Amino acid sequence: MKNVKASIVTIGDELLIGQVIDTNSSWIAGQLTDAGVEVIRKMTVGDNKEAIQKMLDIESLYSDIILITGGLGPTSDDITKKTLCDYFGGRLVVNDDALANVKYLFESIFKKPASDINLQQALVPDICEVLPNKRGTAPGMVFYKDGKMYISMPGVPYEMEGMLSDGVLPLIKSKWQLPTIVHLTLVTAGIGESALAEKIKDFEESLPSDIKLAYLPSYGVVRLRLTSMGDVRVEVEQKVDNYFWGLKVRVKEFLVTEHDDKLEVVLGKLLREREKTIATAESCTGGYVAHLITSVPGASDYYEGSVISYSSEIKETLLGVKESTLEKHGAVSEQTVIEMLHGLITRLHTNYGIAVSGIMGPGGGTDEKPVGTVWMAVGDGTEFMTQKLQLRFNRKRNIEITATIAINFMRKFLVTH
Amino acid sequence: MKNVKASIVTIGDELLIGQVIDTNSSWIAGQLTDAGVEVIRKMTVGDNKEAIQKMLDIESLYSDIILITGGLGPTSDDITKKTLCDYFGGRLVVNDDALANVKYLFESIFKKPASDINLQQALVPDICEVLPNKRGTAPGMVFYKDGKMYISMPGVPYEMEGMLSDGVLPLIKSKWQLPTIVHLTLVTAGIGESALAEKIKDFEESLPSDIKLAYLPSYGVVRLRLTSMGDVRVEVEQKVDNYFWGLKVRVKEFLVTEHDDKLEVVLGKLLREREKTIATAESCTGGYVAHLITSVPGASDYYEGSVISYSSEIKETLLGVKESTLEKHGAVSEQTVIEMLHGLITRLHTNYGIAVSGIMGPGGGTDEKPVGTVWMAVGDGTEFMTQKLQLRFNRKRNIEITATIAINFMRKFLVTH
Repeated sequence: MKNVKASIVTIGDELLIGQVIDTNSSWIAGQLTDAGVEVIRKMTVGDNKEAIQKMLDIESLYSDIILITGGLGPTSDDITKKTLCDYFGGRLVVNDDALANVKYLFESIFKKPASDINLQQALVPDICEVLPNKRGTAPGMVFYKDGKMYISMPGVPYEMEGMLSDGVLPLIKSKWQLPTIVHLTLVTAGIGESALAEKIKDFEESLPSDIKLAYLPSYGVVRLRLTSMGDVRVEVEQKVDNYFWGLKVRVKEFLVTEHDDKLEVVLGKLLREREKTIATAESCTGGYVAHLITSVPGASDYYEGSVISYSSEIKETLLGVKESTLEKHGAVSEQTVIEMLHGLITRLHTNYGIAVSGIMGPGGGTDEKPVGTVWMAVGDGTEFMTQKLQLRFNRKRNIEITATIAINFMRKFLVTH
Repeated sequence: MKNVKASIVTIGDELLIGQVIDTNSSWIAGQLTDAGVEVIRKMTVGDNKEAIQKMLDIESLYSDIILITGGLGPTSDDITKKTLCDYFGGRLVVNDDALANVKYLFESIFKKPASDINLQQALVPDICEVLPNKRGTAPGMVFYKDGKMYISMPGVPYEMEGMLSDGVLPLIKSKWQLPTIVHLTLVTAGIGESALAEKIKDFEESLPSDIKLAYLPSYGVVRLRLTSMGDVRVEVEQKVDNYFWGLKVRVKEFLVTEHDDKLEVVLGKLLREREKTIATAESCTGGYVAHLITSVPGASDYYEGSVISYSSEIKETLLGVKESTLEKHGAVSEQTVIEMLHGLITRLHTNYGIAVSGIMGPGGGTDEKPVGTVWMAVGDGTEFMTQKLQLRFNRKRNIEITATIAINFMRKFLVTH
């Protein structure tokens, strides 16, 4: 079976000057991959007729499906619709369903009158197939030319996601016969990418050519992914699974989970299984540990709350850290995080707790405790573990990596106690 | 003066299957734009020799500079270096500086022996100019062909950012004479993109062709950006500034700031000017408001801390919300957020506070209070404002938009009290 190849195109000057990070193309890529479409190129061009037409010329040389987002919004710096209409040789006409949708959204949901600009959203090229947008005013458009399929969707992530799931994927599956792609991913922590590569070198060399291994490092964890494709799902799954089993055994001392889960999801599953609760006491991470834990749906089943004690006063009043401890050892010290942990568990009545204090930069460092110094403690009411980090990144990354390491540290405590 | 055009290329299968979001290309785009280079295309291809070579063929048709990241890591699924070496007709040799850097990093920083894979990082094509990497082991590489410049950098953001700032930008500025690009951006809140477009339609139509207006909507705010370019900085600045002044006047009732600042930065500036302090009491946002506030360097000057009261018990014990209030009105109610705010300011001894409680989904909704119902209160010890939101997004977006709106609500309280 021939692979169906796709290019994902995002349009917008704001992407080319770096004012906005493109999260759409990554999400679309994941959805297409899961459906068995091979994404071979992603591309961004500006709000410029010539650039968009050139892009269409090039991508149609390589891909069967060209999926476009952006440039369909209600303001006059958008140009995609007109350019597509010209390119495929149509003219703009009012689409009745799209017009009814705009009117419905303004009357019933937004509860304000639709402007002329809003109503113009219902104009579409007369030669395209229209895809409804249940979450916004701009409809999707599908064009066909020389056996290729061109799909244009709005750039607002929430609208695009609904349209891709409800309209685009079913359409693609109805037009093409797709192969099965199987990914199996495990997560490791506590070992770097190159040490891991060294450790599983012979495993990697033993892989057949149709199974691919990828290293995906991020913030203290490295995910390992095996991928293969074929026509019969059960055969592909079995083949990848055999090697995946070998990989798990090889990395078992660093294995966090054999699913493609984030650390906060793994931690949540452990707490839910044990029917235990957790809270956090954060200083330098400023709520980011709590944010990661509560980003998981249903976290209220095991997460009680947090005290973010940025100031020393709050460390004392809400967590009961002794003034003498802060004076003697400082806010960033092993003694302080131990007292934060103890106060947290005692006062919030949870089974487990995470306490973190550090200096994230750019200011606040000293010779003795430079920027990037972090102390953390995790434990239950009686036992605990502590560790010190010395990070060397910028503020944003120091915060994110500290939170990730703290959650993994708690996970380690749970699986060893 | 002819514009210098650039293509930004990221390489990696993990980007094409959607497992990783590409933040590098956006950051690079911002840096190049600020330097006066016009980014005309961004592109992602897989770890595949043929795809990389095809990409080089295509991008060199359109751009003067082709900036590549990714595919230079220490593991065997990386292919960029070998492909570039072949493409430009060189052979791999050991670079002494790069080798010394790998050895230094392992001996002095990582404090473990360098493996063979690590040492191979020092192999570079003999026909390239080598750029040092102070933050990691993989060096950068610069190739020249037919008047075009090809620059290859590692994919790890922290390493790439250092190399771009220290090595790549100075090199580009030494090889090309760059024009001046001026962007002026203001931030509005409380008005949607299309209503704003309607409001400033005549202003937009009055703009000369060499000044471009862009709408950049995100989470409750719309940024408006005017852009122009030319040879003489002072002339370009003056031209854009004249229109920017007109734009500010036109949107003044919705104006948050006339700088390209995030809301949390604007809030921080206001608090710092007044020498006042703030704390937050969060339920549904789970620390995200605190995270935004503390993501600003120096936030400890005005931010005291937070109580994240996910459970009712913590709302009562740490914030003093009355049990009868929670029973009568529920955790998501105007009365509850008012008591949270009052308890917060009283117990944490701050000047101002933000209190938020809501249902972020996917579970937890009722007929009376569906998913997306949020109450928030902001104020000082004596006066306060409350508002109710009814959101209709997924959990992640509900959390992010609620936090943004809460920070803007606090900002509004500050500028009106």
